[in-house]
This record gives sequence, structure tokens and C-alpha cells, in this order.
Amino acid sequence: MPATRTEGGTSPGGAASAAPLGILCGGGTFPLAVARSAAQSGRRVVLVAIRGFADPAVVEGAGFPVEWVHLGKVGAMLAALRRHGCREMVIVGYVFRPRLSSLRLDWKAVGMLRWFLRARRGGDGHLLSHIASFFENEGFILRGAHEVAPEILVAEGTLGRVAMTDAEREDARIGFRLLRAIDVFDVGQAAVVAERHVQAIEAAEGTDAMIARCGEMRASGRVRLPRRSGVLVKIPKPGQDRRIDLPSIGVRTVERAAEAGLAGIAVEAGGVIAAEAEAMVRVADEKGLFIVGLAE
Amino acid sequence: MPATRTEGGTSPGGAASAAPLGILCGGGTFPLAVARSAAQSGRRVVLVAIRGFADPAVVEGAGFPVEWVHLGKVGAMLAALRRHGCREMVIVGYVFRPRLSSLRLDWKAVGMLRWFLRARRGGDGHLLSHIASFFENEGFILRGAHEVAPEILVAEGTLGRVAMTDAEREDARIGFRLLRAIDVFDVGQAAVVAERHVQAIEAAEGTDAMIARCGEMRASGRVRLPRRSGVLVKIPKPGQDRRIDLPSIGVRTVERAAEAGLAGIAVEAGGVIAAEAEAMVRVADEKGLFIVGLAE
Repeated sequence: MPATRTEGGTSPGGAASAAPLGILCGGGTFPLAVARSAAQSGRRVVLVAIRGFADPAVVEGAGFPVEWVHLGKVGAMLAALRRHGCREMVIVGYVFRPRLSSLRLDWKAVGMLRWFLRARRGGDGHLLSHIASFFENEGFILRGAHEVAPEILVAEGTLGRVAMTDAEREDARIGFRLLRAIDVFDVGQAAVVAERHVQAIEAAEGTDAMIARCGEMRASGRVRLPRRSGVLVKIPKPGQDRRIDLPSIGVRTVERAAEAGLAGIAVEAGGVIAAEAEAMVRVADEKGLFIVGLAE
Repeated sequence: MPATRTEGGTSPGGAASAAPLGILCGGGTFPLAVARSAAQSGRRVVLVAIRGFADPAVVEGAGFPVEWVHLGKVGAMLAALRRHGCREMVIVGYVFRPRLSSLRLDWKAVGMLRWFLRARRGGDGHLLSHIASFFENEGFILRGAHEVAPEILVAEGTLGRVAMTDAEREDARIGFRLLRAIDVFDVGQAAVVAERHVQAIEAAEGTDAMIARCGEMRASGRVRLPRRSGVLVKIPKPGQDRRIDLPSIGVRTVERAAEAGLAGIAVEAGGVIAAEAEAMVRVADEKGLFIVGLAE
């Protein structure tokens, strides 16, 4: 596959940023949050929504042009981005690792297939870095969502009205150390620590399932903890491409943490995205949970 | 609490091993396996069965004297051991972290309470080491189950008819490295690795729940793997007191691994106990799973 990167394509600002920003939209509300933030900074935006993952109720009707594509129609994605004159793009929202037969591959995608096949052997980090280099190879400048919408990153400090105790801060530190100890294994980016004891570590099941497990362990009596205890910790993997795989927290994260009886959420400041931060903080305040960004 | 250790109590063999061995029995079939093995080596055995944990169907009727005690009646445990003339004891079988109000504490136990309270703040390893030092303080010699029944440890090599492939061996190595990276956090001792990708890491939920999760992730389509793939790995924690907390595998482990679609089990040779090894290997052969002890 020949590199078609143009001279302008390597410039971070100028012509490329005057052109509309292409947002490849997976699931969740996060793509729209990024689109709105970029638009507020004066940027034109085009949404390229992936069928089966992007939520029509989220991406449609927000005032942005929307192009729907199948995940396997990589040629159509590239064409949509080029048709709108995009030079820069971001990839946001979740896309589960797909079954190949469901991808509806086009010829461009068949050329990309070796990336997917190689990536299936590794962790998600590998998959995503292959996707990133594919789009760059096609001449696009891949930006991180935090680059086009920097205010979406959780900054250092307490986000809502609830503060964390010193003991909870120590739990968070234990969790951070644990996650850093396993980062080379390309597993999950989250864990739950309560009273200096690691309750759960995320691997392939995802953060929501891990949080739910903590609630189940308490409900079944397997784990005995005071009401509202335990800290959900989340950090980015050091080696990962932050442009496409920053971990995120949102309203749903807070709701699940509350259901599981946790006391709050601690993330690495500047390393985790808060989708719908305002709504998330409102829910956290209502439920009495803290949300804190901790400097490394 | 004064140390009442006698001179004879510090001698590993001789008089102490001529006296009956006291087996403090928690849940599962493992206490009986240890009792039978010790009896076969010519040792007299007394079972001190913990109510609510030890299974009457397992410990009764096997030809050994049985004394039933509540978990909180520590004085009664000590009295039962002394009444039968025990100088050495082992602790085997599972005991969930109890709710204090359910313990029915006696005065001896109240003196032990500070151990439990301190231990509640730490991981299970701490709790167990406090229990160990308590019994030693009372003058008993605490033995590991593998010391009184050495054949229960999984040795190096393949236990059944099914061998592991080179790729599965590599998965096992990844799992061993992962578990060693987190051992300082006093979490679980097991993980599942499939196709070089960490699927699940055990923390407070226990091995069975972790295995079940692997099956659920496949059933829901979250994880896509070939039939019969993935290796359950299990190793002892380096810092733990091997006399009271060696990890174990058994028939149920193999059955759960088979249900979850795993290819087999790899444990650290000499560091993991196989309860009911014969029955376990028979089930593994039937289901087509491997069970392998790997040297460190």
C-alpha cells in the first residue's frame, strides 16, 4: 500500500486544521462530546459514523454532517473523509473486536486485513496501533481526541463536591502501582482497591463488568466492606498510542460505581478522558462519590 | 498472650510426629485427602472440623476421630488438639473471610481478635500468617499439607494423556510472568491467557469465578477464540506461608475450565496442590484438557 502522505499532511496546524476535522465515530456519547468541543473552538466537523457501533440518536441531529459506513468499508471511510476535504481525523467511541464475517469488507479493507489478523493475536493496543498507522499511511493526520478537545481530559484535583479521604488516596496509589506493574501485558487499565486490598483487576472483560463484579462480591458476602468503600482506579497504558486509546470515564462509570458500593473514582490526571464531564460530576455529587485526578 | 512452646514443640520429628496429627478442616474434599495421605504414611490423625465450612459428608465416616468447633471458638480448637495429644497440626480447606458477628467468639478468640482486625485491612496472606503465628504461639508446630502429604503437590511434567502445545506453553509463561509481576499486591494466584492475550486476572473473586468469567466472555461474543483454547495458570505467591496457603486445583477446577472452553491448566511444579489427583486427571482426560506442572 503506497504512502500518499502529502506535504501539507505533515504540518500539525495551518492548512490541515483549516479543513474540517473528520471524526470516525464508534459507540457511546463521547464522539459527540468531542465534536461539540472541536466545533466550539471554531473547527468545522464531519462525523463518519460506524454502523452497528455509532448511536444514531447521538450523532444525528446535532448539526454536523454525518456519513454512515460499515466497519469493513474502509475504502468508503477514506472516500467520505476526502470528499469533505478532511486532512485531520480522530477516532472516538468504542468498537468491540469484530467477527471478521460481520465486517462487510471492501477491497480497501482486504488490503488492511493483515493488520487485523496480526492484531487478533495481540491485545487491543496492538489492534489500535495498526489502525492508526493504516490511516496515516493513507495520508491523514491522526489526532488524539484530547488534542482537538483538550478540556475533556480529567485534570489534577477533585471534580465534584465530594473529596477523597487519605485512606482512599492510599487505595488509589496501590491501584496505580498495580496497574503500572501489569501494563506490559496489554491488559485492562482499571482496578478496584478497598481498604488496601485489591478487589478486582480488569482484563478482557472491560471496566463495567469489573465494577459489577465488585458489587456482586459484596452482595454475595464474599467480600465484607463498609458501605461506600473502594476506589475505582484508571490510568492509560504507558506504551499506548494516546491518540486512539485513552481510557475514559463517564456518567455510566459513576452510576455503575455507585451501584457497586464504591466510594469514588481516581484517575491519572491528564491521562483519562471524561465524556460528558458536567453530567458525570452532577451524578457523582448526587450519589456521594468522589472523582479525582491524581498527578503521577 | 504468653508463649507456651515446649522444648519438644520445636523438634520437627521425633516425639511430635509420633503424636497424632491435628488437621484443622475447612471446606472442600482436600482435608480428607491430606488426612488419608498422612494416615497411609503411618500417622495417627485427628480432624478438628470447622462448623459451617467443613463438609460433614467429607470428614465424617472416614475412620478418623472428628471434633466439631465453631470458627470463633479458638479455645475449643486448642483444647481439642491438646485432648488428643496433638503437637503438630495442619490447616486445610477453604474458609471465607467471616463476618465477625458470626464467629461465636470465646475468650481465647477475643485475645486473638487483634490479629483478625489487623488482618481485615490486608490481603488474605496477612490473615493467614497471623493465624499461623497464633497457633505457633500456643505451642503447636504448624506443618504444611505438602509436608505431611508430599504426593499432593503437582510435580513437573504432564499429569494426564493430553499434552500442551508450544503455543499453549508460551501462554502459560506469559501468565506466570503476569502473576509474578503482581505478587507483591497479595491478590489472586491465577490468571487465564489465550493466544498470548491475558483474558482474566483473579483478585478477590476467586479462581472459580474467574474461570466462569472467561466462559461468559466467549458466550457473549466479547472475546472470540477457537474452541478449547486458553490456559489457566496458577502459582503460589512467593512471599506466602506455604504451610497454610498453597493454591490448589481439583476435579471442580478441571470441570469449570472445560465449561469455560479452556484448553488446560498449567501450574508451577511443586507449588500447587492437586486434591483428588486421580479423579482430577481422569476428568481432564475425558474432557481433553491438559494438566501440566512447569518448572519455574
